[in-house]
Amino acid sequence: MTKNTDIPYKIYLSEDEMPRSWYNVRADMPVKHDPMLNPATLEPVTKEDLEKVFCSAVVEQELNQTDRYIEIPEDIRNFYKMYRPSPLVRAYCLEKALDTPAEIYYKFEGNNTSGSHKLNSAAAQAYYAKQEGLTSLTTETGAGQWGTALSMACAFFGLDLTVFMVKVSSEQKPHRREVMRTYGAKVIPSPSDTTECGRAILKAHPGTGGSLGCAISEAVEVAVSTPNCRYGLGSVLDHVLLHQSVIGSESKIALDKYGVHPDIIIGCAGGGSNLGGLISPFMGEKLRGERDYRFIAVEPASCPSLTRGKYLYDFGDTGKITPLMKMYTLGCDFIPSANHAGGLRYHGMSAVVSKLYHDGYIEARSVEQTSVFKAAEMFARTEGILPAPESSHAIRAAIDEALKCKENGEKKAILFGLTGTGYFDMTAYKKFNDGEMSDYIPTDEEIEKSVAQLMPYNK
Amino acid sequence: MTKNTDIPYKIYLSEDEMPRSWYNVRADMPVKHDPMLNPATLEPVTKEDLEKVFCSAVVEQELNQTDRYIEIPEDIRNFYKMYRPSPLVRAYCLEKALDTPAEIYYKFEGNNTSGSHKLNSAAAQAYYAKQEGLTSLTTETGAGQWGTALSMACAFFGLDLTVFMVKVSSEQKPHRREVMRTYGAKVIPSPSDTTECGRAILKAHPGTGGSLGCAISEAVEVAVSTPNCRYGLGSVLDHVLLHQSVIGSESKIALDKYGVHPDIIIGCAGGGSNLGGLISPFMGEKLRGERDYRFIAVEPASCPSLTRGKYLYDFGDTGKITPLMKMYTLGCDFIPSANHAGGLRYHGMSAVVSKLYHDGYIEARSVEQTSVFKAAEMFARTEGILPAPESSHAIRAAIDEALKCKENGEKKAILFGLTGTGYFDMTAYKKFNDGEMSDYIPTDEEIEKSVAQLMPYNK
Repeated sequence: MTKNTDIPYKIYLSEDEMPRSWYNVRADMPVKHDPMLNPATLEPVTKEDLEKVFCSAVVEQELNQTDRYIEIPEDIRNFYKMYRPSPLVRAYCLEKALDTPAEIYYKFEGNNTSGSHKLNSAAAQAYYAKQEGLTSLTTETGAGQWGTALSMACAFFGLDLTVFMVKVSSEQKPHRREVMRTYGAKVIPSPSDTTECGRAILKAHPGTGGSLGCAISEAVEVAVSTPNCRYGLGSVLDHVLLHQSVIGSESKIALDKYGVHPDIIIGCAGGGSNLGGLISPFMGEKLRGERDYRFIAVEPASCPSLTRGKYLYDFGDTGKITPLMKMYTLGCDFIPSANHAGGLRYHGMSAVVSKLYHDGYIEARSVEQTSVFKAAEMFARTEGILPAPESSHAIRAAIDEALKCKENGEKKAILFGLTGTGYFDMTAYKKFNDGEMSDYIPTDEEIEKSVAQLMPYNK
Repeated sequence: MTKNTDIPYKIYLSEDEMPRSWYNVRADMPVKHDPMLNPATLEPVTKEDLEKVFCSAVVEQELNQTDRYIEIPEDIRNFYKMYRPSPLVRAYCLEKALDTPAEIYYKFEGNNTSGSHKLNSAAAQAYYAKQEGLTSLTTETGAGQWGTALSMACAFFGLDLTVFMVKVSSEQKPHRREVMRTYGAKVIPSPSDTTECGRAILKAHPGTGGSLGCAISEAVEVAVSTPNCRYGLGSVLDHVLLHQSVIGSESKIALDKYGVHPDIIIGCAGGGSNLGGLISPFMGEKLRGERDYRFIAVEPASCPSLTRGKYLYDFGDTGKITPLMKMYTLGCDFIPSANHAGGLRYHGMSAVVSKLYHDGYIEARSVEQTSVFKAAEMFARTEGILPAPESSHAIRAAIDEALKCKENGEKKAILFGLTGTGYFDMTAYKKFNDGEMSDYIPTDEEIEKSVAQLMPYNK
């Protein structure tokens, strides 16, 4: 519900209104999520375990469950000023097309060269690495947004970067690869013969197109075996959600300024970094009992970790080399069927988002991709922005909620996260435009079989 | 020179600060450019001649040389609010990398799905067509920005659109084609068998990849032979420059707000719509003797209409069906050698820009594409935005001017137009990243031969 009727199409904060701290929602959680476990000992991981892989400041943030506000260093705030504040948009044209009494707002994170919100955490990870005297980072990328984001951040802060790009993605999306190269990154299709792990996989599966799990293994192997090098991850982990809280904080400042109280907040959910970041400061209010909100996580029906997965300890990667995390998961062996939302094809879900969902603070729903692209097309034609397939999951749910408001004559305020643009996803749009898109839903048996393999780690 | 030292990274106007009128620089020109000529009679074209092809409001604007301000209808202003105001950016990071005392500003027009400034005129042309009861438009597109922009505008205002896309571009840039289709446009590779003109060309040149000139001919043929249909053009003509003046007006309002007086204003120049739009209100001050500015048009060395062309009457298209315009031209038969800045491969130049250049109000220079991509790479890595090859011509000149300031210790303020993003130009970036880019410069003989053919129309 809104008090103010004079809301512009786009609300931009001025630079001095931008958040100076990240919002650590874990500080507000009455019960924290279970700790990550070392896969060798099944004991909680230590700072030292993590520092072999990640840089120290990031590890400190990963383990900080108590400080609500964590200051954003000035150099990162200046980096943010190159592409932030992102606009909070009132979707007047979409509202009109839907003929709904609801007010629809979206926070648009796609107006930067990485094409998504990923740059918010890339900036932080590259900055801290430079601060700690590292000279290079490694990472993996599938759809390519994260690899692009970290390439941009490393170019800016003067770090070398090696990106292991899932081979099939690298072949399907040569243009993404080229953007990373333009920012000076070395892009290696994975599996590769440059790592032990890659060579082993190539030997076992000649001709494989690779997987995110394998690319993670290669990137971590290089990070831990190279002097002054660490690894950077683009989603799932708590420190990534922390960095992404800048999305939610900017949204909240902008909405507060205009007296708008969103009744429903919607985000697409793959690893959970966008959703977690968007909802953090709002969730804080809810957890402290100050104000109520409905939060909706939207995931693809083809990869339904929250809606059909189990809340168990699982590995972060298919290669089973990462720590175990307590999360909603389809099992790290689960191979999602083809879906064009590459960023939402992760088997698990952020521990923070999982815990909040488990404790009833978040709702979740899954949507099928043809209906997602219908929503994307409508959004593109009315609001002018061609959305990423991932982001379009949130659009689908926002449209559905706005149509419910129309049915019930309710003037609710809906906020959703528009995480990115679809310029590198035109193959998917072509399928849709040609009427050749199909929907895939995993069977219960598939999920049960994959989840069953986690039992040894969940006694 | 600047009085204010507290300038943010990005200056966004509020919606009520946005211009309510387009700026018609022709009103300030002491001597107007020569009129368009009907190619059949070699007499000045009439309103009636033009209304066969374009909608009436647009024809009126095309012929209006006297009103300095032309009101922007409210529906167009609301359309603009979906993606405007565009940011005026202070290039702090580029300045630092160049270690220059100069201040560099750029007006960034790439943050919309069409990827360039073209949407500013597409919105107007679609709006007027709808107002006049038309049901469809036709157009042509080469690089694809204009086709995308008009697709977006037609989707918004509810008009059918047929885009004749140069066949070779359609094959090289299938993703651009798909964006247009997502907005509901019918995209036909040109030459096609759907028009008389197309069939004639296919018969004469089987297997041809097409040209912009041929695509224009097909689009015009369909427009004049279809009920309630007209044709829309994306550059060159006076009404297009008029619509693009929103770029310059927003820039001027933003700079005035911070007390910044740009000493040098730089734009890339293909057909001239971006440059003309950017400089219009500043040029008005110069022409009225109120304030001085240096204006620099930057064109590719491979297609140097201003720097090496002749000031003559020429056709707008290769097919020689359009009116004749007095302009700097390489001759409508000139075929520019391969260059990745597809939007700058036009043989001629806007009559307004040509006249201002001819009368000494604008400077021009040409740059080679490898040096353009070097500038693009530096800009991407420092300012975070991956620029279009076209826009990078302006970046090259801005960097060169900033380096001159460094040499001379001058603290000049430089403004340039960053017309678009390079997301659909990664094939070009790959050539550059692989060290395989080459530079082409036409010989004097080539230009002379092509220009000589214009003599019958320039007695």
